[in-house]
Amino acid sequence: MRRANWQTRRDAIVDTSARVFAQQGYHATGIAELCTANQLGKGALYHYIGSKEELLAAIHDRVMDEVMNGAERVAATGGSPSEQLTMLGDELLDVIHRHPEHVWVFLHEFPALTGERAEQFRKRRRAYERRVEAVLKAGVESGEFRKIDPWLTARAWLGMHNYTYLWLKPGGRLSARSVARPFAEIFMHGIAQRPSG
Amino acid sequence: MRRANWQTRRDAIVDTSARVFAQQGYHATGIAELCTANQLGKGALYHYIGSKEELLAAIHDRVMDEVMNGAERVAATGGSPSEQLTMLGDELLDVIHRHPEHVWVFLHEFPALTGERAEQFRKRRRAYERRVEAVLKAGVESGEFRKIDPWLTARAWLGMHNYTYLWLKPGGRLSARSVARPFAEIFMHGIAQRPSG
Repeated sequence: MRRANWQTRRDAIVDTSARVFAQQGYHATGIAELCTANQLGKGALYHYIGSKEELLAAIHDRVMDEVMNGAERVAATGGSPSEQLTMLGDELLDVIHRHPEHVWVFLHEFPALTGERAEQFRKRRRAYERRVEAVLKAGVESGEFRKIDPWLTARAWLGMHNYTYLWLKPGGRLSARSVARPFAEIFMHGIAQRPSG
Repeated sequence: MRRANWQTRRDAIVDTSARVFAQQGYHATGIAELCTANQLGKGALYHYIGSKEELLAAIHDRVMDEVMNGAERVAATGGSPSEQLTMLGDELLDVIHRHPEHVWVFLHEFPALTGERAEQFRKRRRAYERRVEAVLKAGVESGEFRKIDPWLTARAWLGMHNYTYLWLKPGGRLSARSVARPFAEIFMHGIAQRPSG
């Protein structure tokens, strides 16, 4: 029970701090500002986060956990490569739509992670990228997709989806799904072996 | 002559400072660090840049000038909407490939611009986005493209291209053109009215 409370409070601190970092940048944010934003003293804050860099890593993990959980759901569901890629897009835009500030920090501040934390982050990000590449490769091999370069095409797909963090916001005009569907249509027509009308 | 010298020196300061900002962030960079990086005293630095925010605006302008010049060349060349969009992609990736650090600063630090400078930046960025949207709209109207939403489709296109700043580097494995061509193929097949094989 106490552990669950600690975790809930820590998650709230991670979320609040993501907003602060997104607004003014990781390097420019001091511990004092994080204390104010989280209404905690310095000792209490360190009790929950360990260090400022650990907090940054926790924000990255929060995004990466959700993104990888989504990828696991897609793999468990199965289906053709184009169905898999469509579902990956749905899952990714859902995460970005719900956490635009975390994603802002994720995409902008990853160079501030050092040592083991940087290494862990790179590994996890690479693991996700490989999922996308594997689906593209499977589609080329099955003949569903034309002979595209899976690495380069994965970057096109990731750019198209990741970049939505600039304008896809909770409570905004567009839902994650209303963006994911037309994006999937563009991409699937774009790489299909036999384009359908 | 003296004016030309001043401009050349200023451009060099803008380029050097873009690297510093890209490495450690705009807010976290002090005037003293900019002096060191540019091997200039404080007075001399201010003589060239006016203020730190003016320097940031100059980095944004340097990217935006090149991007808009590219868009002007495309408009002057003419051609079908798909030809125009292909050329816009060539031009955009060429700018990103030559200036990944400026583009890093451009995409990450624009919220640090204030007042009139923020307004100018938004106007110029919007003007470029409208060029892309106009080409898409023209393609829908001529029947070359299917009935896509020009605003949303422009965001897909911009994300796919802009996001290359993370891995498309001068002297790297890939040239701008070797990325622009497969990206254009994906996008053109993706939005074509009658997909060709």
